Amino acid sequence: MEFSSKLLENAVREMSQLPGIGKRTALRLVLHLLRQPAEQTERLAFALRSLRNEVKYCRNCHNISDTDLCEICANPKRDESLVCVVEDIRDVMAIENTSQYKGLYHVLGGKISPLDGVGPNNLNISTLINKVKEGQVREVIFALSSTMEGDTTNFYIYKQIEAYGVTTSTIARGIAVGDELEYADEITLGRSILHRIPFENSLKG
Amino acid sequence: MEFSSKLLENAVREMSQLPGIGKRTALRLVLHLLRQPAEQTERLAFALRSLRNEVKYCRNCHNISDTDLCEICANPKRDESLVCVVEDIRDVMAIENTSQYKGLYHVLGGKISPLDGVGPNNLNISTLINKVKEGQVREVIFALSSTMEGDTTNFYIYKQIEAYGVTTSTIARGIAVGDELEYADEITLGRSILHRIPFENSLKG
Ligand SMILES: [Zn+2]
Ligand SMILES: [Zn+2]
Repeated sequence: MEFSSKLLENAVREMSQLPGIGKRTALRLVLHLLRQPAEQTERLAFALRSLRNEVKYCRNCHNISDTDLCEICANPKRDESLVCVVEDIRDVMAIENTSQYKGLYHVLGGKISPLDGVGPNNLNISTLINKVKEGQVREVIFALSSTMEGDTTNFYIYKQIEAYGVTTSTIARGIAVGDELEYADEITLGRSILHRIPFENSLKG
Repeated sequence: MEFSSKLLENAVREMSQLPGIGKRTALRLVLHLLRQPAEQTERLAFALRSLRNEVKYCRNCHNISDTDLCEICANPKRDESLVCVVEDIRDVMAIENTSQYKGLYHVLGGKISPLDGVGPNNLNISTLINKVKEGQVREVIFALSSTMEGDTTNFYIYKQIEAYGVTTSTIARGIAVGDELEYADEITLGRSILHRIPFENSLKG
């Protein structure tokens, strides 16, 4: 792509550093900003810089938070003996959205992935182990994606905490509510049969 | 979407102002920036602000340019009697990429679209008319997209310049080179038959 302006080229190059944003899309976005009032670009730049420079993480669960302790951890109505281990804040938001969970979270910040150079020390794992060691936790719920990296991470944490007599569980996986069986992939369908639940339990919604 | 942080919420809101970027995508992009060194966010913010605040347009063709006259207009080898009218800089880049065009451009900055509140006065039309009036132009090539707005814009300009004896043309539209006829839409196929060219001309590549 040949640019008629260095300023334009720089803006497109920086924009296309973002994942899933190619040069063409970056150019479209940048030209859009040029057609809008300059204040929109100022607000975008300010919001991104403010977040990047001032971001804080909850000292208990590592969720992104403007306060030392996030709203979830600071809520006395939440059950702090229940800890749901997730990869990132999007998982917290998705689970919170269901209104079905009353425990706390532990945000790892990723999954163990030797290929990407992510080891246990790059993740928020030691603080989770410490919480379990200190005996505050009754149950650890693994809610990482069921990929090789997710399974590896679950197992790594499991081995470190099993000696402390904590209950461990993983979220149920199966056919999505309302989905037709014939369209489900084999592995999901297989698991959902293997991990079937008493019919009475399904009546609880 | 409920956010655990105002800083995060602001960044996602501003990012999702961009066209085609929903809240989920915006969140993904913003979380990516948080995992990268702060310098990446600084470079992005700086590049966007610099472009927005310092952008200049070529005084002849309105292409984005860091200089008063863009590289194309300043090139003595280009034929300044030939002017290709395009909607925006992406069209200039696409045509330049073919290396088939040796004239200059005129970037309108959009198309006439009453529904979107875009009238002739919101576009770089008067400078084009003036160029034609001054007798510098031999041929005006319309290269706007063949939509209702594109056709309206072409016709509006055409009516203003026809009295000055300038040649007007539109770029050829037809079946893309290499495409199967059966997959072409009817209108394109119809036009490409109507505007067929002598076979000898097709041999020139
Ligand atoms: Zn927290
Ligand atoms: Zn120019």
